[in-house]
Amino acid sequence: MANVNRLRDFVIEATHLVEKHRDNESALLAEAKPLLAGLIASDDWLPEDYAVADPLRYRQYLLHADPLERLSVVSFVWGPGQRTPVHDHRVWGLVGVLRGAELSTGFSRASDGRLVPGQEDRIESGDVVAVSPTIGDIHSIANALPDAPSISIHVYGGNIGAVRRASFDPQTGEERLFISGYSNERLPNLWDRSRENG
Amino acid sequence: MANVNRLRDFVIEATHLVEKHRDNESALLAEAKPLLAGLIASDDWLPEDYAVADPLRYRQYLLHADPLERLSVVSFVWGPGQRTPVHDHRVWGLVGVLRGAELSTGFSRASDGRLVPGQEDRIESGDVVAVSPTIGDIHSIANALPDAPSISIHVYGGNIGAVRRASFDPQTGEERLFISGYSNERLPNLWDRSRENG
Ligand SMILES: [Fe+3]
Ligand SMILES: [Fe+3]
Ligand SMILES: [Mg+2]
Repeated sequence: MANVNRLRDFVIEATHLVEKHRDNESALLAEAKPLLAGLIASDDWLPEDYAVADPLRYRQYLLHADPLERLSVVSFVWGPGQRTPVHDHRVWGLVGVLRGAELSTGFSRASDGRLVPGQEDRIESGDVVAVSPTIGDIHSIANALPDAPSISIHVYGGNIGAVRRASFDPQTGEERLFISGYSNERLPNLWDRSRENG
Repeated sequence: MANVNRLRDFVIEATHLVEKHRDNESALLAEAKPLLAGLIASDDWLPEDYAVADPLRYRQYLLHADPLERLSVVSFVWGPGQRTPVHDHRVWGLVGVLRGAELSTGFSRASDGRLVPGQEDRIESGDVVAVSPTIGDIHSIANALPDAPSISIHVYGGNIGAVRRASFDPQTGEERLFISGYSNERLPNLWDRSRENG
């Protein structure tokens, strides 16, 4: 049985951080990064429904949304060969690899409008990387494994599935607006403490 | 398709009320009652999974829990003949009848310890009643319909499924502590605004 209590405790602490650092993104990220690293240090808590890869495209399963939409926690599941387009977020985001490994590439905009890729980083399970409009908001993520799914847990400073944002043609820099939504109609119930020991 | 946006908008407004009236229960209830009445005025938003009666006992489906456990929203479904024991809450609570009709009885404690029932009120769909340690916290609720389920939407000032509270033998007043938990392992995803029109 999944130890969903780990996710619940993470959600509670992340909510406190968002309230504590309302107007200070760097202080928030400084505390939220190790909090997410702590969550992904164990791989015994994600219910199986939210770890299922789709043969056609990556999935994004909402695990928790703050009722005031200041925070969301999402399980991204990439099958072999799957990757995001180049895209932005418009809110801060943290990517923590739970299972497998991923390739993360940041992009910056050149004077002629094209998007220039930075270094491609291989992020392993346990690693956390950050994005935001302040520190660099445009990236792509791919599954680094050719033969197995990879899963990362993402935390955002908003209801990411409802944010109007952009994907890009990296050659031309041309943007296409999108709202991602989520892959799931049901969320895990994190709140039934009567099912736990102790 | 269920108009879950109604429930989402209720959750957002109820969260604002809890933050606004942290230490003023009567002000909170004065605003939360009409808010719940507005939610239950329409019966087109509860996903079917959370309206299913069980042949053996009433069900309590968590619909939303506040991440700081200041609020929970629960769908109670009573089959014909089903009723709660006499019980308390230890936090404020609102009961709004969505479908069918219910019988609500408040209890007060006599000097010899026994629990004395007050009037039995029949509450119809659209009605809202309140409980709390301040205004009277001990009651029982029964389905008023002999041949169909009834459903009420309950809102509490805490994570009600995790509260250690009591049921009572009304004859002796003797209490038995319990933690109710919830009937469901999955919650509705209220946050996918990409699935909505407009
Ligand atoms: Fe991203
Ligand atoms: Fe009750
Ligand atoms: Mg590394």
